[in-house]
Amino acid sequence: MLEQLKIDVCEANLELKRNNLIIYSWGNVSGIDRDKGIVAIKPSGISYDVLTPDDIVLLDMDGNVVEGVLNPSSDTPTHLELYRNFPTIGGVCHTHSLHATIWAQACRPIPCLGTTHADYFYGTIPVTAVMSEAQIKSDYERNTGKVIVEAFLSLSPDEMPAVLVANHGPFTWGATPAKSVESAVVLEQAAEMALKTSHLKPDLRPISRPLLDKHYFRKHGKNAYYGQR
Amino acid sequence: MLEQLKIDVCEANLELKRNNLIIYSWGNVSGIDRDKGIVAIKPSGISYDVLTPDDIVLLDMDGNVVEGVLNPSSDTPTHLELYRNFPTIGGVCHTHSLHATIWAQACRPIPCLGTTHADYFYGTIPVTAVMSEAQIKSDYERNTGKVIVEAFLSLSPDEMPAVLVANHGPFTWGATPAKSVESAVVLEQAAEMALKTSHLKPDLRPISRPLLDKHYFRKHGKNAYYGQR
Amino acid sequence: MLEQLKIDVCEANLELKRNNLIIYSWGNVSGIDRDKGIVAIKPSGISYDVLTPDDIVLLDMDGNVVEGVLNPSSDTPTHLELYRNFPTIGGVCHTHSLHATIWAQACRPIPCLGTTHADYFYGTIPVTAVMSEAQIKSDYERNTGKVIVEAFLSLSPDEMPAVLVANHGPFTWGATPAKSVESAVVLEQAAEMALKTSHLKPDLRPISRPLLDKHYFRKHGKNAYYGQR
Amino acid sequence: MLEQLKIDVCEANLELKRNNLIIYSWGNVSGIDRDKGIVAIKPSGISYDVLTPDDIVLLDMDGNVVEGVLNPSSDTPTHLELYRNFPTIGGVCHTHSLHATIWAQACRPIPCLGTTHADYFYGTIPVTAVMSEAQIKSDYERNTGKVIVEAFLSLSPDEMPAVLVANHGPFTWGATPAKSVESAVVLEQAAEMALKTSHLKPDLRPISRPLLDKHYFRKHGKNAYYGQR
Repeated sequence: MLEQLKIDVCEANLELKRNNLIIYSWGNVSGIDRDKGIVAIKPSGISYDVLTPDDIVLLDMDGNVVEGVLNPSSDTPTHLELYRNFPTIGGVCHTHSLHATIWAQACRPIPCLGTTHADYFYGTIPVTAVMSEAQIKSDYERNTGKVIVEAFLSLSPDEMPAVLVANHGPFTWGATPAKSVESAVVLEQAAEMALKTSHLKPDLRPISRPLLDKHYFRKHGKNAYYGQR
Repeated sequence: MLEQLKIDVCEANLELKRNNLIIYSWGNVSGIDRDKGIVAIKPSGISYDVLTPDDIVLLDMDGNVVEGVLNPSSDTPTHLELYRNFPTIGGVCHTHSLHATIWAQACRPIPCLGTTHADYFYGTIPVTAVMSEAQIKSDYERNTGKVIVEAFLSLSPDEMPAVLVANHGPFTWGATPAKSVESAVVLEQAAEMALKTSHLKPDLRPISRPLLDKHYFRKHGKNAYYGQR
Repeated sequence: MLEQLKIDVCEANLELKRNNLIIYSWGNVSGIDRDKGIVAIKPSGISYDVLTPDDIVLLDMDGNVVEGVLNPSSDTPTHLELYRNFPTIGGVCHTHSLHATIWAQACRPIPCLGTTHADYFYGTIPVTAVMSEAQIKSDYERNTGKVIVEAFLSLSPDEMPAVLVANHGPFTWGATPAKSVESAVVLEQAAEMALKTSHLKPDLRPISRPLLDKHYFRKHGKNAYYGQR
Repeated sequence: MLEQLKIDVCEANLELKRNNLIIYSWGNVSGIDRDKGIVAIKPSGISYDVLTPDDIVLLDMDGNVVEGVLNPSSDTPTHLELYRNFPTIGGVCHTHSLHATIWAQACRPIPCLGTTHADYFYGTIPVTAVMSEAQIKSDYERNTGKVIVEAFLSLSPDEMPAVLVANHGPFTWGATPAKSVESAVVLEQAAEMALKTSHLKPDLRPISRPLLDKHYFRKHGKNAYYGQR
């Protein structure tokens, strides 16, 4: 069942490797069929070199496997929490990409320092709260999703398709699995630019709101005029 | 019409990808036929993987499309402003290459710290003024060109084929579309060298004028003796 | 004799090159047959481009060559010292990988700054004492092993498969030659992340013990639940 | 004439490209036949993509072309000055490799911070004096050689096959053209390691003399025991 979704999720996972966002079996991408309430996700600990659509695991929204013989990603409860709370997203991606992880390790949000960032992320990319001992010891992966959701109480996941989990690394999302990977690729670029900009401009003041608005809405929303429409 | 120009512009755009200056559909290169007053430019938001000469859009100097079915790059008004004000240039290139963008994000010009820089750029690579809210809200892309031109009031675009747009990224140019890409490649190298030199030499004092003159004029102008002539 | 071990050791050495951990003939990987008390190791100064299983040298635990016409790696006495003192390990790897070597050159241990590190290394990656003139002048390579072993007096090599030799570079190990290389690859990632995290977070405080425990034991030991089991 | 030398020099130049030490037509490698007093060098401004042994220019020690239709490298007088003053070297290499050039731009010598450096360079890699206006304006390239030679008044070029020309970049050498390129590759590694070690250890104190001696003489001289002998 859901053959196209499994193909899309497999292909999005392979994009992680092609974009040098992961090594070994690190990282995972999922996608959702909202009508059926089914999530498709990479199996846990499988090498990207051998991954095929048939390996993709299908689960219901409670995390019960409905198709597939392999264990799903150990991060599955985080993905499910995001799908439950961010109703417009269609794909979720998790990596340990170098520069995004560095900001996560420093527990610092990434300010919008230029138009490269503004073209994709509408403002500061948030970092979650540091998780408590209780949140870590029980239901860790679901609680990871919960601290992400808490970081978005006053933020729209449609306008901000990325978050840094403190001491851990990034999660990104988008309308499709492929778009969630594109968010991860651009996050990595923006994170590297911001880190190295800090060497030249230690105060890291963000760009002006008019410039942020111009670049973000040039590419997103009803008045967008970038690309072929 | 202008088949060779479209081939040259397409090829120059593909050079961006081969030199790792761009990802996705970022960046754009254009070329001009000065006799006909026609500019050829990459279409907006098209992947480099599928770009062919037939996709290149032709426009007159007022920005009217004269050939091509795709929308031209959203940065087209910036290119046109440069062609109007820098009458000797034949190609313009825009990227978000990593290190050049970092200097642009820091709103800092790149001093000439060594002969690598001096071989291509005759002095400090300038950064534009930060654009005002009014300049951003109306005619943004044309105003981007205008702040570039203002940065060259006392500079020759022939001797300085690059600029950093504050908070944004680099524009480069040259006698041909291919040369504008070469300027972008070397700018990225010089920007990386300068950023990392700052770790060892925080004062960033430029090299002496005699050394700048020796290296720049060894490769440029009537007394040049580098290469095969 | 021991054809499979020679194949495994050769293959693990070639993995160093594929993962960009070495240039020229730098680095070396060995493996051990514990039952026979035989160590297989890369020959000294041989290019990875021409290395075959037949080139792998077999030695007894006293360092006597028992098979092979080439000189064994000059670091062989270090490997033997590790096999003698760490009875559960089956492979040892030495590289001069960039970021791990940088921490070694700075004579600083790598604190656990995030879950990427915690997934593989249970706590701070230690650095050895600086070797004395006497330790350097006589039996240098064996003494290198001894200062490593001293750094593990209160550490388990099973939970910490890596060390930095002060002013020199990393040694890593694992249950097999391939696993020792995996330790080296992930060490290099963790070292790069930690170095660059220090730019954003100079105090380099490690992550909490509960988070370290969660990630390390999610992948290791009897309660692990990562991967396919 | 000297077909093998031209092949060796051509091949050594192509190695620059394969090792990512140069872009475009930057850099140059030469070799010498000491018996005949003939130097073979890359032509000026020729792309590595099309370079063949027939393009290599042969000159006598006074810089007169004795074979070849192309102009020799504009840096030829620097190479000749080195061959005249360093009688044991057989190949010279010049690049603008990233990290070596950064140290040159900072006008700082590279201290020996670890065994990677000590394996190839016996101590601190020197930087030349900054050239005077007179030295730049007349006979610039020959004077570049002279300031290099001055930096070696109390140093052996056999034990230190590299130098940084202040504000410019590295020159390296060796017994053969291929060895001069190997020196350039390892210099680039040592330069990157040293730059990044400075982030963790700002005082940059060099390693001890016994450790330097052990590593350098493990690989060089009559008591060397690295490799196959």
